Amino acid sequence: MTAVDPAQGRCPAPHREVERITLGHGSGGQLSAELLRDVLLPPLTPATGPAAVPEDAAVLDGGLVTSTDAFVVSPLFFPGGDIGALAVHGTVNDLAMMGATPLALTVAYILEEGFPLDDLRRVVASVGAAASAAGVPVVSGDTKVVPRGAADGLFVVTSGIGRRPPAARVSAAFARPGDAVLLSGPIGVHGVAVLAARESLGFTSEIASDTRPLHRLVAAVIDTAGGAVHTMRDPTRGGVDHGRHEIAGAAGIGVEIAQETLPVPPAVAAACDLLGLDPLHVAGEGCLVAFVAPRAAREVLAVMRAHPDGRQAALVGEAVADHPGRVVLRTPLGATRFVEMLVGEQLPRIC
Amino acid sequence: MTAVDPAQGRCPAPHREVERITLGHGSGGQLSAELLRDVLLPPLTPATGPAAVPEDAAVLDGGLVTSTDAFVVSPLFFPGGDIGALAVHGTVNDLAMMGATPLALTVAYILEEGFPLDDLRRVVASVGAAASAAGVPVVSGDTKVVPRGAADGLFVVTSGIGRRPPAARVSAAFARPGDAVLLSGPIGVHGVAVLAARESLGFTSEIASDTRPLHRLVAAVIDTAGGAVHTMRDPTRGGVDHGRHEIAGAAGIGVEIAQETLPVPPAVAAACDLLGLDPLHVAGEGCLVAFVAPRAAREVLAVMRAHPDGRQAALVGEAVADHPGRVVLRTPLGATRFVEMLVGEQLPRIC
Repeated sequence: MTAVDPAQGRCPAPHREVERITLGHGSGGQLSAELLRDVLLPPLTPATGPAAVPEDAAVLDGGLVTSTDAFVVSPLFFPGGDIGALAVHGTVNDLAMMGATPLALTVAYILEEGFPLDDLRRVVASVGAAASAAGVPVVSGDTKVVPRGAADGLFVVTSGIGRRPPAARVSAAFARPGDAVLLSGPIGVHGVAVLAARESLGFTSEIASDTRPLHRLVAAVIDTAGGAVHTMRDPTRGGVDHGRHEIAGAAGIGVEIAQETLPVPPAVAAACDLLGLDPLHVAGEGCLVAFVAPRAAREVLAVMRAHPDGRQAALVGEAVADHPGRVVLRTPLGATRFVEMLVGEQLPRIC
Repeated sequence: MTAVDPAQGRCPAPHREVERITLGHGSGGQLSAELLRDVLLPPLTPATGPAAVPEDAAVLDGGLVTSTDAFVVSPLFFPGGDIGALAVHGTVNDLAMMGATPLALTVAYILEEGFPLDDLRRVVASVGAAASAAGVPVVSGDTKVVPRGAADGLFVVTSGIGRRPPAARVSAAFARPGDAVLLSGPIGVHGVAVLAARESLGFTSEIASDTRPLHRLVAAVIDTAGGAVHTMRDPTRGGVDHGRHEIAGAAGIGVEIAQETLPVPPAVAAACDLLGLDPLHVAGEGCLVAFVAPRAAREVLAVMRAHPDGRQAALVGEAVADHPGRVVLRTPLGATRFVEMLVGEQLPRIC
């Protein structure tokens, strides 16, 4: 029965709660995926939208690859990096995860009125140094300024173009049952480093972000194994788990991870224990997950370990035909648990 | 002589004013140019930076063209458009100003926690409709959410890739003395429309933004005149004057404009009179300035006027060898005045 307002003698207008953006929509977890599926993609598909498979970058005709990433990390400067280096590495790595060689970057800055010019100089120097170290030129840019209070200091958006060699045929949809799941380095490092800088967690002061460009590691892997590399993903927002859920969903496979093989640095484990975080959900910015045909797994692992950006690479699990779309963690004692996809926001503004 | 603090018995630390970003740094005027020259470019040049000539987009090997643009317009919705359409058109037009055919766009959204989902749906629908109408797919994207108060609702950053046909050889540096200066449509329309929406200026309610994609007009012009088109620029931030100052500086020429030929709509003129603005400094989003070899000027003007996006095209002036780097306005009575480049911020958050 509908309540009637006696003063008006008629039904009040039906109340509709205004739906609003939450921090969880930016988490890289399930709410992000729903926002993408329900709001962002429908006006674009099919003729003018991206591919149906969620990828880190889009592949165009002729092997051109492009990607964009917005960076809103807080604080702007943290042990091991800053928003400038992170923005360069983030887009370089998105291109690399599709097997592409990055050719050029663009950078857009959104600045808050009153932002210290010296901080901007530091960030821009870091962008320049990171681009130079990665060997990828910044060819164009844009700068906007908004009034005091309309932004939080500085946001950086990078976009990039790359070209993919014919040997690189990777996609989230290409992972197959039996594939070895390789991880090129320790997980959760970037997220804990930023959190420690933000919250002044003393015990994690030894952790520096692992932010780094991964395109050279990818090139070494592709050169060696070519088509045996089915899928690559860098576990940024949402952590290692998010990428694996995306892959599991896109490829219609299950993923099984052996817990004791996961490279979780002690300081990351300690921080996660204390804060109630799952290291699988914490962002890294310097490692990648690869799904590789079993025949090539040993060789790819060796190439990764021989590379300066993959010294701590590990075989952490395999793709299976069971429980498609789900990720299972197997403990040393033989117990198993499903790893649930992060629903809301665990660590806002980590990248 | 340095003052000594008697209580301390020593010199106080030298006071240095912290330099800060001002709204003027985002104006597209002289402060923007200085920020670019003194802060943003030095860490990038020469090996990993953009070309020395200020262009709307960068040209890579093989005729690939790329560009990026951040949009922070307020309000998000205004007569004739919104931030979504503006973002698509802005990047399509930056590519077009280098003579390129746009191939693909990427879109990054930075959202404030609490932003109404229905407003996001409107913006995304507008992005989709604008991309579809322009025939350019949105192939990749990113979405970040920042806490309430850390952004003003929504910012949009678009990037694009295009390919330039060999016949299109345009650059801000290629304008020459004797070139005809053509304008494809009325000036100042977008800026006044946004300002009217923001400030609720009743008398300008009839003005709708001229935001539109210009790549088809550019293709028609290049098809006709090819190498006779030396330079194109769309007069967005900083207005028509800013683009002409950039061109004059890059090409080492002077520019003379005949005031009575400038297509200034009456409502734009009225708003500028009232607000003390110079229409030459007010952004448009739907017209372009072209420097064309004199032999081809008449033909290009005819092509523009025959095109739906250039019906009000006009010959407004010429490039001269005198007063290099400066723009002179000639009044109907024969008087002349130098048009000074906008120094600070005239209209913040117009795009």
